[in-house]
Amino acid sequence: MLETTITKMFNIRYPIIQGGLQGLGTSSLVAAVSNAGGLGLITAGSYSSKEEMLRDIEATRRLTLEPFGVNITIGVRKPMDEFVEGVIEAEIPVVFTSGNNPEKYIDLFKRHNIKVVHVVPSIRFAKKAEKLGCDAVVVVGFECGGHPGKDEVTSLILVQKAVQQLSIPVIAAGGFSTGKSMLAAFALGAQAIQMGTRFLATKEVQLHSLLKSRLLQLQETDTIIVKKSIGKPARVMKTDVAIKLAKLEENGASFEEIFPFISGEAYQELISTSNDNRGVLALGQTVGLVNEIKSVQEVIQEVITEYEIQLQSLANHFKNTTCSDRV
Amino acid sequence: MLETTITKMFNIRYPIIQGGLQGLGTSSLVAAVSNAGGLGLITAGSYSSKEEMLRDIEATRRLTLEPFGVNITIGVRKPMDEFVEGVIEAEIPVVFTSGNNPEKYIDLFKRHNIKVVHVVPSIRFAKKAEKLGCDAVVVVGFECGGHPGKDEVTSLILVQKAVQQLSIPVIAAGGFSTGKSMLAAFALGAQAIQMGTRFLATKEVQLHSLLKSRLLQLQETDTIIVKKSIGKPARVMKTDVAIKLAKLEENGASFEEIFPFISGEAYQELISTSNDNRGVLALGQTVGLVNEIKSVQEVIQEVITEYEIQLQSLANHFKNTTCSDRV
Repeated sequence: MLETTITKMFNIRYPIIQGGLQGLGTSSLVAAVSNAGGLGLITAGSYSSKEEMLRDIEATRRLTLEPFGVNITIGVRKPMDEFVEGVIEAEIPVVFTSGNNPEKYIDLFKRHNIKVVHVVPSIRFAKKAEKLGCDAVVVVGFECGGHPGKDEVTSLILVQKAVQQLSIPVIAAGGFSTGKSMLAAFALGAQAIQMGTRFLATKEVQLHSLLKSRLLQLQETDTIIVKKSIGKPARVMKTDVAIKLAKLEENGASFEEIFPFISGEAYQELISTSNDNRGVLALGQTVGLVNEIKSVQEVIQEVITEYEIQLQSLANHFKNTTCSDRV
Repeated sequence: MLETTITKMFNIRYPIIQGGLQGLGTSSLVAAVSNAGGLGLITAGSYSSKEEMLRDIEATRRLTLEPFGVNITIGVRKPMDEFVEGVIEAEIPVVFTSGNNPEKYIDLFKRHNIKVVHVVPSIRFAKKAEKLGCDAVVVVGFECGGHPGKDEVTSLILVQKAVQQLSIPVIAAGGFSTGKSMLAAFALGAQAIQMGTRFLATKEVQLHSLLKSRLLQLQETDTIIVKKSIGKPARVMKTDVAIKLAKLEENGASFEEIFPFISGEAYQELISTSNDNRGVLALGQTVGLVNEIKSVQEVIQEVITEYEIQLQSLANHFKNTTCSDRV
């Protein structure tokens, strides 16, 4: 156990949240994260209908008795209102919203006693989320997989500033995959970390095993930002396809030209077959620190243990070289 | 006192280094940093000749008895060999090199018992520096003012990975300006931090006071990367001039067209008169956390105090919620 405002709010053992992962934030991963003491997030964008989502929520409940949440990306071409209904019907205790303003749904969630956490890439949006009544925010730095926002501000700066400027708790995301980085997040004032990339190299995630193995070879320089041209910058694995997509965009390609690379179909093919001749995979710079496929339980225990050891070591150091000076 | 491998190596009280600051890393700032317990760095690029540098080193020695170093950017159009000679003549104990491979000078420095620290924006260059015999490296993340390198990898990732991959000590740079960020750096395994941007809002730095005041209004989103077109990306204050320069570069401007913005003359005019109709000022994202002009002594004490308080608070928390579980 490692108690923070966030662990108390979500009733979880460890301050580790699984980030929304389209097509991958499904029962097997979500249950594993929650069973290991973190908070798994069913990622609504993985399903084509409310019914499909509800079936997977049931599947998750067969696998775990621990709390888990739902991540809903607002404004993508999906049946948003249905997902929101589904969350309420299934009595999910916590919802993470991202992508666009969640205002429309906040009162509804609140009336059903559902905690609402909004994911933001900037201080401006973080303040807005607090004003709308969100219970916490996830701030996402430039190093993150997926959508870092347009300002390119890194986690080191964003987390500190969000903690300074908000009264609600801050969850740090973007670049966090180790116990040392969790301690860094806490040093900056965060109450939890959200990890996405790290959970891609786990036994339980439904990502094709060839892709999982490939992650282990990647360095921190092996990501690239695409989808700038459509105003939705996304950090993804730097594959030939991703490089080609970025070049097309630089040269002013139309939406029709880039669509084949970013369609749901291309993505589904990529994650389920590892065939990367079309789709792109969201991936953070922290992939350069991921070297082994483990069970989710092992990942979370490793993070917690490394956090404890590193904190103990700094605290001892502090005692020896600082406190003693004051005696 | 806060002892680390780096404080012992440089014989300083606090693990805080002043980054190289062209035109600003001169006697008044350098002496103030060293007097306050950090390591000031005379920035060779500020001078037009060895004699001028030596005069300012003498001036620094009139202001402080504490150790200070020299920062030399390798490969700019300056009398490099002369600066190296000057460092040896003045019996400077530590040199920071940056910009290009310092190989040519390493043996010479070593023969004179001068510690050599190389500043790098990537793991590849960090390993190379270690191989060349450097005593430590500064790793610089994407959020830094000045030159973040081309890979856009942030401090959170780079520091951890450098510590993993090297045997020599790592100094964290890029995004560090507070005690909380220093604790984050230590959590990631760094042995010191280097601050540049924070020292621009100090009483002692020879930056025009109108520019200093202007810094206080800036947010973390008020920097921009220029000089990409000449292969030397630099993060600077997002002024109208900087935006114009970036646009010119995007549109394929020639070196002749962009030179007026990046010439030493334009820069000198900017920092000494605050007239920003030509030059650009290197500035990190952490400017969004800088709200007050203080003396260097106050800045350093504030960083150390915040570090201690935050570490104590995490350590107490650790004791209460983690260690106790094990009893």
